[in-house]
Amino acid sequence: MDEKAMYKLSYGLFVLTAKEDEKDNGCIINTAIQAASEPNQLSICVNKANYTHDMIKRTGKFTVSVLSQSVEFELFKHFGFQSGRDINKFEAFDKCARSTNGVYYITEGTNAYISVTVNKTEDLGSHTMFIGEITDMETLSNVPSVTYEYYQNNIKPKPREVGKTDDGQTIWRCRICGYEYVGEELPDDFICPICKHPASDFEKVVKKWR
Amino acid sequence: MDEKAMYKLSYGLFVLTAKEDEKDNGCIINTAIQAASEPNQLSICVNKANYTHDMIKRTGKFTVSVLSQSVEFELFKHFGFQSGRDINKFEAFDKCARSTNGVYYITEGTNAYISVTVNKTEDLGSHTMFIGEITDMETLSNVPSVTYEYYQNNIKPKPREVGKTDDGQTIWRCRICGYEYVGEELPDDFICPICKHPASDFEKVVKKWR
Repeated sequence: MDEKAMYKLSYGLFVLTAKEDEKDNGCIINTAIQAASEPNQLSICVNKANYTHDMIKRTGKFTVSVLSQSVEFELFKHFGFQSGRDINKFEAFDKCARSTNGVYYITEGTNAYISVTVNKTEDLGSHTMFIGEITDMETLSNVPSVTYEYYQNNIKPKPREVGKTDDGQTIWRCRICGYEYVGEELPDDFICPICKHPASDFEKVVKKWR
Repeated sequence: MDEKAMYKLSYGLFVLTAKEDEKDNGCIINTAIQAASEPNQLSICVNKANYTHDMIKRTGKFTVSVLSQSVEFELFKHFGFQSGRDINKFEAFDKCARSTNGVYYITEGTNAYISVTVNKTEDLGSHTMFIGEITDMETLSNVPSVTYEYYQNNIKPKPREVGKTDDGQTIWRCRICGYEYVGEELPDDFICPICKHPASDFEKVVKKWR
């Protein structure tokens, strides 16, 4: 059984947003698909570690902004590398507008948004699947959508020079999304803050600081 | 509400196979994703019009073969343009082998296969979502996976010359997958045999026969 077979599946990339009372939040997901056509339904799978997950579970509403090839890495960092539990991701962020469901969608680096009201929830262990009917959707640009593969090849920063040096620091790089953790030892229970993959998906990289 | 926003979602393409008693069958789908990581689960959404759908519902087992960029249009025609209710798609087809679950996977034009035992089923109207744990998977090649967009741009035959002529026949072409129906009128209740989209997704094309 070769686990790498899972890497052959194709995905888009999305900012998933929710609103609960006065709190807005968003995270990065790769699992939005049209689940059925009659009625038109969207499904998403969200890691339970995401604060947006809990907000959707409580409010039953979300919006998916489809990332386009004009998206910058900065947006992945903004929504993917930090948690809404610690900061307000929308405090100084103005590339957004409200959908008719009251939830923010992202207006730059995106080509469409789709708003959903949840009517089915499946507990799948590490993730929850939310399925719902579409209440609003609009096209925002004609720039092609980003696939996960495009992100890996064109958006994710390329690894810096690698080599063993006296002044080298150990970097642990997530093989899945490219997130880098600095420190001699990576904790066994470390979870990648962007893609939520476990420590076993990190590789050790010794790089020379320049 | 702009329905075209749905076209911005990204998908892979797959041959979905099942086996029931001595009957083997397969169809084309675009909705296989990793739904959760702990435990590792795959989800698919299958149109109820597909015979493979009924087989999976009864047997609780399926295999997904991930299509790669080496796939030929012929394979889409073979598994997508005809129904297992009418013919035996595996009768004269030898580009396949059996996974450990007994179900065929496709060995050419693919880069991986994943076998699943269903443990959750969601009735979504036009489609059923099957979610299950992975019982076997292997990588078959390093050729990149086909995305739905790649299929549209590189695999689907390009439209032939279009023009109004005395000897022209009316073609109705599915804007989603490129399937062509020949006939003066397209029935209102026509469903595309490859991608299952309705008559409203077809456009009229008058072409000169050469």
